[in-house]
Amino acid sequence: MLIIKIGGGETIDIKGIISDLAEIKEPFVIVHGANASRDRIAKELGKPKKTVSSVSGYDSVFSDKDAIDIIMMAYAGLQNKRIVELCQQHGINAIGLSGIDGKLIQGQRNKGIRVRENGKLKILHDFSGKPKKINSELLNLLLKNNYAPVLCIPIIDENNFAINSENDDIVRVLVSAIKADKVINLIEAPGFLDNKDDPDSLVKHINKEKLQKYEEQAQGRMKRKMLALRKLFESGATEVIISDGRAEHPVRDALKGKGTIIK
Amino acid sequence: MLIIKIGGGETIDIKGIISDLAEIKEPFVIVHGANASRDRIAKELGKPKKTVSSVSGYDSVFSDKDAIDIIMMAYAGLQNKRIVELCQQHGINAIGLSGIDGKLIQGQRNKGIRVRENGKLKILHDFSGKPKKINSELLNLLLKNNYAPVLCIPIIDENNFAINSENDDIVRVLVSAIKADKVINLIEAPGFLDNKDDPDSLVKHINKEKLQKYEEQAQGRMKRKMLALRKLFESGATEVIISDGRAEHPVRDALKGKGTIIK
Repeated sequence: MLIIKIGGGETIDIKGIISDLAEIKEPFVIVHGANASRDRIAKELGKPKKTVSSVSGYDSVFSDKDAIDIIMMAYAGLQNKRIVELCQQHGINAIGLSGIDGKLIQGQRNKGIRVRENGKLKILHDFSGKPKKINSELLNLLLKNNYAPVLCIPIIDENNFAINSENDDIVRVLVSAIKADKVINLIEAPGFLDNKDDPDSLVKHINKEKLQKYEEQAQGRMKRKMLALRKLFESGATEVIISDGRAEHPVRDALKGKGTIIK
Repeated sequence: MLIIKIGGGETIDIKGIISDLAEIKEPFVIVHGANASRDRIAKELGKPKKTVSSVSGYDSVFSDKDAIDIIMMAYAGLQNKRIVELCQQHGINAIGLSGIDGKLIQGQRNKGIRVRENGKLKILHDFSGKPKKINSELLNLLLKNNYAPVLCIPIIDENNFAINSENDDIVRVLVSAIKADKVINLIEAPGFLDNKDDPDSLVKHINKEKLQKYEEQAQGRMKRKMLALRKLFESGATEVIISDGRAEHPVRDALKGKGTIIK
């Protein structure tokens, strides 16, 4: 079982990805982003993304009702259905679902963000959280009947509210739920870069046994990436390929070993 | 088997409808509109609905790529997912799908609109068409597993393009595909009005045997409504209830006999 994670950047070549997927024989699940569409729609609707600064000094996206409306439009609406349409045009019988459909991706609402407002401590609650459980019965029902699930946010919280969540976390929970051995992560870069601003710093191979060591040595963004990767393997993945989603044949390239292979 | 058609008007009480549906024991399929959301989003994005005048004198909605994008956002995105969320909050395990997901609603693209441009005859092609066939296997698979399908446009054409279509036609094809005997049509009026501008002109009962006679006598909008109703019965419905979607308990009222009952 294969999971294809498609980044939501403007330059990702969705057509190339889907036409490659039509050649794949084994069953797969797609998890896609849509941040470029989301940001554009949000801006055009005059409701740009909100961030708040917590007392601990972190900036977080604040997902209010408007933000969830826009996620529904951009992710579950526009991006999901255009991907499903492309799949159908390439003979892949795709079904697009958000995490709230059939409670497919169940999560836990975040506890809130501690902020200081006019000198007072306050906890702001938004519609965001972490995925915890997959409705594997539904997903397996679709896969068994030869449908290709195309998944996206929002996911559903413990009180059945639609919430925002991170695709990295969703993929991790999926890997363990449907026993996916391989994850292909299509991004707007040639693969995993040692220096994110230098496309020539591509790391071709990472030994999964060494992820923890790298994580301990790294800082900031790199530390978080290494942690996310390590968790994928802990959840049951045996191979992760990070590859260029902007190429003409993103999936074919990934399977041929372009990009970064971690195993 | 019951089909609930929910109008897409601004004043439709979705919360009331879903909370009523939670009381219903028999399986049902929801088909919803979203025209108020669509028009609002289209306007805010600066891409209002386009219409063209055909040489035969009719004004038609022209569904270009932008219009389908907005249908995906408003119908398959915002409205569909907010309805699914409400269902989940009321204990209904809903799955929201457009007609392109799993090729659920398959249609035939319209042949084009004949227009006169600068004195020349021209045929304009858009993304719209008529539903012809339901993927009943998929729908029955979901129903058998106790999911409540929540359906909307776009549907999929013979070349796997997403197209716009009329919900009246979709409901008719559905009735015959899943052998639905009863259709509840929730609209922004107390029921079927003899005079559309006079809420007191509610027609309480229509004998389905007389639909053809009424159709022959009627003109314009009324003629089309009678035709649409007659086709529903020809497709296998035994009872159609047209009722007020703005009420506190739209479905409960409909099942109690408020509105217009046609059988």
